[in-house]
Amino acid sequence: MPAFDPTRWVTGIARVEDVDFNKSPLIPAIVQDVDTGQVLTLAYMNQEALARTLQLGQTVFWSRSRQRLWHKGETSGHYQDVVSIHLDCDGDALLVLVRPHGPACHTGAMTCFYRSLTSAPPESSQSHPEPLEGG
Amino acid sequence: MPAFDPTRWVTGIARVEDVDFNKSPLIPAIVQDVDTGQVLTLAYMNQEALARTLQLGQTVFWSRSRQRLWHKGETSGHYQDVVSIHLDCDGDALLVLVRPHGPACHTGAMTCFYRSLTSAPPESSQSHPEPLEGG
Repeated sequence: MPAFDPTRWVTGIARVEDVDFNKSPLIPAIVQDVDTGQVLTLAYMNQEALARTLQLGQTVFWSRSRQRLWHKGETSGHYQDVVSIHLDCDGDALLVLVRPHGPACHTGAMTCFYRSLTSAPPESSQSHPEPLEGG
Repeated sequence: MPAFDPTRWVTGIARVEDVDFNKSPLIPAIVQDVDTGQVLTLAYMNQEALARTLQLGQTVFWSRSRQRLWHKGETSGHYQDVVSIHLDCDGDALLVLVRPHGPACHTGAMTCFYRSLTSAPPESSQSHPEPLEGG
């Protein structure tokens, strides 16, 4: 199993102005652990959340449920120190590489993506769920 | 640098019915290379795209620009074989672990996230852009 090398494919530079908040005021931000490669969570940033994130060096999101800025860790202490931020080709998604102070998920799980989706069709979902692993 | 272990934190099972298409008909799907840990792209799935993905064992998205189902690789040959799919805690984001047949990005880059965002404020962005690496 090769080591995770987050800088392997970085070949360009983007500016904050390149983030296309005109397309949508909320941009999805994938949060990934820079050391393990684990994807921790998907959250959203508006322009102010991104500005605060850059200022603080820790993740700040827009909470869609609470309709306010949300400094990740403000209640749990599980802040996420930002190592680098990457913008996708069409400027409407962010990848944020972090060193987390603790679990990312409000359930206490390290990552929000702790559930595997089974490929069992609904009609047989009560009997033999088959994980998609290897499928 | 530790090896990327995508199954490390998987502790539960989710069903297709757990994906909350009621919240939004389009669910963001993070596509990650299962071998390298590299995040390749963020795309969107509607219910049919997810069903086709599970059927085919390759990624199928909803193209927002073309407003149609899009079997990734259908023109480039750069299909993405699905190894496993993971659902987040609140059922509104997917993590798809894949083995890609080629670059994920339409630009030819391996990942769509090939640009680092600089933290230089707009007023000085013409002079000394500083990558956020290590910041």
